[in-house]
Amino acid sequence: MTQHDAVEVIIAKRDGGELSDSQIDWVIDAYTKGVVADEQMSSLAMAILLNGMNRREIARWTDAMIASGDRMDFSGLSRPTADKHSTGGVGDKVTLPLAPLVAACGVAVPQLSGRGLGHTGGTLDKLESVPGWRAALTNTEMFGQLESVGAVICAAGDQLAPADKLLYALRDVTGTVEAIPLIASSIMSKKIAEGTGALVLDVKVGTGAFMKDVPRARELAETMVALGKDAGVHTVALLTDMSTPLGLTAGNAVEVAESVEVLAGGGPADVVELTLALAREMLAGAGRDDVDPADKLADGSAMDAWKAMIRAQDGDPDAPLPVARESHVVTAPSTGVLTRLDAMAVGLAAWRLGAGRARKEDPVQAGAGVVWHARPGDRVTEGEPLFTLLSDDEARFDRALASLEGGYDVAPAGTAYEPGPLVIDRIG
Amino acid sequence: MTQHDAVEVIIAKRDGGELSDSQIDWVIDAYTKGVVADEQMSSLAMAILLNGMNRREIARWTDAMIASGDRMDFSGLSRPTADKHSTGGVGDKVTLPLAPLVAACGVAVPQLSGRGLGHTGGTLDKLESVPGWRAALTNTEMFGQLESVGAVICAAGDQLAPADKLLYALRDVTGTVEAIPLIASSIMSKKIAEGTGALVLDVKVGTGAFMKDVPRARELAETMVALGKDAGVHTVALLTDMSTPLGLTAGNAVEVAESVEVLAGGGPADVVELTLALAREMLAGAGRDDVDPADKLADGSAMDAWKAMIRAQDGDPDAPLPVARESHVVTAPSTGVLTRLDAMAVGLAAWRLGAGRARKEDPVQAGAGVVWHARPGDRVTEGEPLFTLLSDDEARFDRALASLEGGYDVAPAGTAYEPGPLVIDRIG
Repeated sequence: MTQHDAVEVIIAKRDGGELSDSQIDWVIDAYTKGVVADEQMSSLAMAILLNGMNRREIARWTDAMIASGDRMDFSGLSRPTADKHSTGGVGDKVTLPLAPLVAACGVAVPQLSGRGLGHTGGTLDKLESVPGWRAALTNTEMFGQLESVGAVICAAGDQLAPADKLLYALRDVTGTVEAIPLIASSIMSKKIAEGTGALVLDVKVGTGAFMKDVPRARELAETMVALGKDAGVHTVALLTDMSTPLGLTAGNAVEVAESVEVLAGGGPADVVELTLALAREMLAGAGRDDVDPADKLADGSAMDAWKAMIRAQDGDPDAPLPVARESHVVTAPSTGVLTRLDAMAVGLAAWRLGAGRARKEDPVQAGAGVVWHARPGDRVTEGEPLFTLLSDDEARFDRALASLEGGYDVAPAGTAYEPGPLVIDRIG
Repeated sequence: MTQHDAVEVIIAKRDGGELSDSQIDWVIDAYTKGVVADEQMSSLAMAILLNGMNRREIARWTDAMIASGDRMDFSGLSRPTADKHSTGGVGDKVTLPLAPLVAACGVAVPQLSGRGLGHTGGTLDKLESVPGWRAALTNTEMFGQLESVGAVICAAGDQLAPADKLLYALRDVTGTVEAIPLIASSIMSKKIAEGTGALVLDVKVGTGAFMKDVPRARELAETMVALGKDAGVHTVALLTDMSTPLGLTAGNAVEVAESVEVLAGGGPADVVELTLALAREMLAGAGRDDVDPADKLADGSAMDAWKAMIRAQDGDPDAPLPVARESHVVTAPSTGVLTRLDAMAVGLAAWRLGAGRARKEDPVQAGAGVVWHARPGDRVTEGEPLFTLLSDDEARFDRALASLEGGYDVAPAGTAYEPGPLVIDRIG
């Protein structure tokens, strides 16, 4: 590998230049090895955030992060693979019904997932509320489960894009999270290294999402779709609304319960709609658009796949889920129509109740979260429950209530409510 | 002090906002105490470099760096004080004759100086080639010497703007040196903390300077003059040429010898011109423009002050200066007129010969350096010496010769040569 100097690379980007392939390869490798120091990588990240990277640079940066670790290969499986990645939203439990549903349609889902940080929940945290379930699998276990069950949701190992792990932690404390080239390469390095054949990206947009407006969400989606195509992964992105939280629950066990409702053929309409939309894209990407996933929800085969997936990871799908020790009900302030329910307000409330963590070493409460009893457009009655807050720790209710304040509007009965689309756009 | 969060401060500047006084006070204090980490300060420095700071922000940043340590006070001295700071140039030995000259005119010069890093030499390194001379003085020694001799050149203590020391070292390795707000606040925090009553800034511009073009040099000069005025220090800046090195020597002992020539009433015309121009500004700033410094060079009193200054710091001004063990002569390639001598080429050659250091813990060679035997406009004769390279280490000549290559032009005899002005502009 050609030797470079950290200051030379930083200055090239700082002064608005393009980084060469060789500079990118070197800086990622040297950073992973500790030769480039954190304070050098953070000033480079800030220069990238402010001066951007072009498509070639982003693709090379992604490749270099993949090359910092191991790349998985599922080409030996007897069925095609497809995966989904969401940029993170409140109440977004869709991975839970989606993975077994797609598996039930004959496409394997190798989902390497993470834990939650901040106001959006983590898929592994949610699944860990299922008694016995374990997130850590060996590669051999993962392959075996993909072959036998068709779906696995587990923790990404240390050797999956280790450069990204270091860089992600650094960006979090240096004000350099919000750089589209770095967000796109972070997500795509992990998904490409994971070895999926097809990928569907759920790019959230709205108050509860990382991307607050459609143009930036579209830019991120387009960047990631291009990276996927360059890497030979069939990639499609859906831009979906995250101004309102998904479904009726945000937390861990409460989201598992709602996911099971969806797998049983019920559940909130928006969760079902998004799960089916993403499943159809995954099936199409894997060449199996002959199967209609709605049938697999209806005939119980998705639920069978869910139970098999949970059992394969030592979980008991039939055991009762943990329940929070304390609850607190918020009633509707007036009778009328719920016209707004802010995703960020709900997400912060769930987080403060103990469903999420502030630092990565913090534990989460399995039972904590928020349940809301109406969605925008629904009628509400003064004094009837609007939210139920759940926590093991009564002292947390005050701060959670403060998060919810101003986070919803009830208009007089008869007020017209026009819902926006859940799936805003498709980029592929 | 109001508490802030490093990421909040970084994001404010990253997104093009102004930092509040409270944010600036906090971030400098917290960085000095290690609460804000290097990787956070470096991403903030990059954001400042790319998004700038306004005059209020720069002034507050400077004040916060001063407040990180001790501020000296010379108001108890029996005479006014004036100091000079150069942004760094090749062959720039002017501080050496200037400080005793101004002292001989009745104005005290409290020069807290640094060591060289890179291609421009350090004043302390040069003076340390004088046998016995020591750079470290206590505050008591410094006051006593200012009262008795009137001039002191010594090392800045650890308590002079310690935040600047940390930040300077960080900027050096993170590609964030070239930010005018950070350069200006770094220089001015030290000079204001040093407690001088008047200050003259020698802002170098040209190939051998930090600022390569006049507009950026002017911007830096104007920023620093404004900071000085805000702090109640009478501040003037001269923009001076650094496309050609000053005098006929670049190194340590060779520059001391040339300075002594100037103090003896001789020396290269450009060094004399710049020394007198800066002396007149310092005297005017200190309210002593009734004295003509040229008289003090002519009557030997500046030389007396030099000897007293050197002796007060245990140096022997009459001892022979160190001589390099090896020398190598470069002859003129043709007969004609020297029309260009590039300051950067000469500076790099002197540095590679051992006169400067690559890392701050490296030693320097007292005898190493470059002597040139002609200045632009001078006639040269084929085969006659044009440069003498000096080093204790013969192995260094090759790389020094490579630096000089292409660094000078000899045109046919009779070619017209129009020198540019040495003092380009005055800002005050």
